[in-house]
Amino acid sequence: MGKRLLLYLLIGCAMAANMEESMAVKVRHYKFEVAYIYWSPDCEEKMMMGINGFFPGPTIRAKAGDTIVVELKNSLPTEGVVIHWHGVKQLGTPWADGTASISQCAINPDETFVYRFQFYHGHYGMQRSAGLYGSLIVDVADGEEEPFYYDGEHNVLLSDWWHESVHAQMLGLSSIPFRWVGEPQAILINGRGQYNCSLAAHLTEGTSSYKITNKQCAPVVLQVHPNKTYRLRISSVTSLSSLNLAVGNHNLTVVEADGNYVKPFNVNDMDVYSGETYSILIRTDQNSSLNYWISIGIRGRLPKTQQALAILNYHPNSLSMLPSSNPPVTPQWNDYTHSKAFYYQILAMHGTPTPPPNSDRMISLLNTQNKIDGYIKWSINNVSLALPPIPYLGSMRYSLKNIGKPPENFLEDYDVMKPPINPNTTKGSSVYKIEFNNTIDVVLQNTNALSGNVSEIHPWHLHGHDFWVLGHGDGKFRKNDTSKFNLRNPPLRNTVVIFPYGWTAIRFVANNPGVWAFHCHIEPHLHMGMGIILAEGVELISKVPNEALACDITGQLLTKNKPH
Amino acid sequence: MGKRLLLYLLIGCAMAANMEESMAVKVRHYKFEVAYIYWSPDCEEKMMMGINGFFPGPTIRAKAGDTIVVELKNSLPTEGVVIHWHGVKQLGTPWADGTASISQCAINPDETFVYRFQFYHGHYGMQRSAGLYGSLIVDVADGEEEPFYYDGEHNVLLSDWWHESVHAQMLGLSSIPFRWVGEPQAILINGRGQYNCSLAAHLTEGTSSYKITNKQCAPVVLQVHPNKTYRLRISSVTSLSSLNLAVGNHNLTVVEADGNYVKPFNVNDMDVYSGETYSILIRTDQNSSLNYWISIGIRGRLPKTQQALAILNYHPNSLSMLPSSNPPVTPQWNDYTHSKAFYYQILAMHGTPTPPPNSDRMISLLNTQNKIDGYIKWSINNVSLALPPIPYLGSMRYSLKNIGKPPENFLEDYDVMKPPINPNTTKGSSVYKIEFNNTIDVVLQNTNALSGNVSEIHPWHLHGHDFWVLGHGDGKFRKNDTSKFNLRNPPLRNTVVIFPYGWTAIRFVANNPGVWAFHCHIEPHLHMGMGIILAEGVELISKVPNEALACDITGQLLTKNKPH
Repeated sequence: MGKRLLLYLLIGCAMAANMEESMAVKVRHYKFEVAYIYWSPDCEEKMMMGINGFFPGPTIRAKAGDTIVVELKNSLPTEGVVIHWHGVKQLGTPWADGTASISQCAINPDETFVYRFQFYHGHYGMQRSAGLYGSLIVDVADGEEEPFYYDGEHNVLLSDWWHESVHAQMLGLSSIPFRWVGEPQAILINGRGQYNCSLAAHLTEGTSSYKITNKQCAPVVLQVHPNKTYRLRISSVTSLSSLNLAVGNHNLTVVEADGNYVKPFNVNDMDVYSGETYSILIRTDQNSSLNYWISIGIRGRLPKTQQALAILNYHPNSLSMLPSSNPPVTPQWNDYTHSKAFYYQILAMHGTPTPPPNSDRMISLLNTQNKIDGYIKWSINNVSLALPPIPYLGSMRYSLKNIGKPPENFLEDYDVMKPPINPNTTKGSSVYKIEFNNTIDVVLQNTNALSGNVSEIHPWHLHGHDFWVLGHGDGKFRKNDTSKFNLRNPPLRNTVVIFPYGWTAIRFVANNPGVWAFHCHIEPHLHMGMGIILAEGVELISKVPNEALACDITGQLLTKNKPH
Repeated sequence: MGKRLLLYLLIGCAMAANMEESMAVKVRHYKFEVAYIYWSPDCEEKMMMGINGFFPGPTIRAKAGDTIVVELKNSLPTEGVVIHWHGVKQLGTPWADGTASISQCAINPDETFVYRFQFYHGHYGMQRSAGLYGSLIVDVADGEEEPFYYDGEHNVLLSDWWHESVHAQMLGLSSIPFRWVGEPQAILINGRGQYNCSLAAHLTEGTSSYKITNKQCAPVVLQVHPNKTYRLRISSVTSLSSLNLAVGNHNLTVVEADGNYVKPFNVNDMDVYSGETYSILIRTDQNSSLNYWISIGIRGRLPKTQQALAILNYHPNSLSMLPSSNPPVTPQWNDYTHSKAFYYQILAMHGTPTPPPNSDRMISLLNTQNKIDGYIKWSINNVSLALPPIPYLGSMRYSLKNIGKPPENFLEDYDVMKPPINPNTTKGSSVYKIEFNNTIDVVLQNTNALSGNVSEIHPWHLHGHDFWVLGHGDGKFRKNDTSKFNLRNPPLRNTVVIFPYGWTAIRFVANNPGVWAFHCHIEPHLHMGMGIILAEGVELISKVPNEALACDITGQLLTKNKPH
């Protein structure tokens, strides 16, 4: 695993790779066309964004070390689009990160942009909610081996789905009075779910098999053979929901998180937050004459969405035979003790690189809910992120614009247990500038929202990096909490949770020249300003390709300023 | 009126101007911000595009000769936008015509584009249907006089409104099976209408007054004083509907069409097609103790939308007093004899410039409904218009791209009374290139659609020009029909109708260097490809401003090719 820092172009649901050893490195070409399609992900037909006419998008599967080339054509009639390749570090190619206003201009209708990369969802406006996502799986390179054995595998891509369009959702969030998006109409497994629910109806009717003829919303069936070990590659691209997954009668062994191996541990159920990926192993050692439920429920918010169900089918039982026992029940939505018990068990596998012992800089980020002129926002150290029309990568690399510095911390006497005394905040688009190769600690500090006794879970996702999760705590972070940091086996991740009223500390090495977003992965929260921008080693970024720079305004500035 | 050719920056619902005489020419500055808003145009709340938080957009009022400067900021979260200044010739400023892919790149989110001009609606995708429109009124210049007298005036902006989003409408039109947008939920007068209908309910209940508390959908009341003459400035920006307007108990005197004076004539009701503007005079000589209905009904399609009603209020009667007589009834939707009787009465006022006696070139345009790979399209000489990502104006001015020539006519034996024998067509983005100052005749030939016994009305709108309407006829245009052309007093217009199974001939002088669209003003038809592109005197276009050129791909090409 010491070789992982050599890696680039990689990381999805897995794994180790070694550029020097893997001789069969390939370039894999894909053509993606994004367009609206009619689809019935929960048996109700709506319009959504599809890729090549399908939802979810195609699964890209490649070997570690392979180069992925995706020609993305925007066939939406009037909207721009980008795709972020979640979990990919983009070392040496920061312009391919797929973040509008950060790494590139949005791709205009009828235009094509060429990306090179992995694990993807849309990162412009709230297009992830509109269905713009799929899976990417990176296999170990030839000659490498996984540190665990399995006989077969299945992909489990989790998402949440609203009947209201994302345009309407975005408008509601930006209105006075504020209109929250509400709970999703359905949780989808591999893009399929049931609304008002055909499958549940069968359950309560006591029938022993189901029939849903519409393939777009038919229950997902994962077929297994008895007495084998299966790997489930689980990823969540939910817009809002924190989820809990359980498989009836089966234990889960967690072996990987966000593309990094973890010390294996067993659980009955597991939480999955938006932006996370996991691999779990299950052993098919139960009564082989039965099928079993896989159930997905909502955590962290009072659920109003029925649990999603898939079927674990023991071959040769009928695919449509309903399990004889009830689906596993999701823990109480606000049982955070349960959530923390799971989350804190995630530790790096032996052999994972450990963090540098000291950091060069600590940034404290207070996550607060605020208002600007009556509009409800989220902000970080009292600045709500507002992305500029000119993408940062080009504007910083070529000094097209002066960009300010945001605050590094917050008032020492801020009471995180209470609503903000002064609820007002300001918009900002400044950037944390980081010296190349510095070691950076970030403490994410959760607080009480605008209403009393409310504090939410926020899964924060960092682009361009994995980071070490050094510690968590309840209440306010204190200076001497650094002494409790886990420097021995902290997990390497790209998404990390802050629990209600708690803090989370991470560490990373700024060794990837580029401009990177770090933000809450809940789309409405990001839309409301919950994120920051980091720029590191900008002077070391090699020539940014024209196609990543030349949107309207940038194009004009560049013709004046760009060094030839 | 001989001075009209000196004009530029002008034309809306009126009129003559003289740059030399009008000393008080002003520059009028406006700031428009386009964003989604919640609005209830027919008492049902929906999201729509607003300008500065309102629907319809502001009315711009200026004197002939004034320069209008509009800073248009796009505050849509992910969609591009442009605004077309309908009726403005844009002489010398073809880049300000507001047509995406033709005169400019779409303005990206968070960007601002500066226009100079009049009478506006959106011209990108189907954004007009989303509510992006308002009125522009151009008064005669100081020292000029209108050729008719009136005591007061009112603005009557007509539109149609759907509850389904334009995104969903566009998807339906581009799907297999084809999903037609259907009839509108409401006809709006000055942006206000009633769906399922509060006002109609009052009518049938026999009450004598109404009460609608929501201002966004309250009936429009036009207040007048008895025994005066009023000018109504009528314009239609409908997406689909052809309309008929009548005022209970009052005659209408038509005095202007598309910004040009016409020989006054009297009617009881008048048709108004999408893209047309008219001025009519009414004399308030009826029983002054009563109010009267203004009613708007649908023509040319089997109506499923209730007629729109406004109240002509004789001062000092109560504004909310319902008229005592029934609203005027719209003529039968398919009474084309009635429509033609009205339309053919429109002739130029004495003094209007007459056309050159001969043309240099005749282009025949066969309007057919067709299919491409099973998708239903409209096409012209068997080519369905597909706009390219690089706007024509820049790509032709700077020769960035080779652009082909489309067909000038169609098979002589084509039977316009029957469905096409071969229904298949092709996409095209070629351009009719026209020599500067040539006189061009265009014959628009209507046909039977894909189904038997169906032929629709199409109002064709030309950008950058007024044209003379030389003649109309039923059935197929024959060469000797040119002998019947009206060269004496043909009306000058920018929008003209072809009736079912008929033809219409127009003439214009190619004296406006630029690239101009000529298309059916029905938005779904344009979306389905019903239009052509004309380029004239491209070599004479002065330096195109960067901001009109620099969208993604153009930007890249320009940095290579643009002359400095």
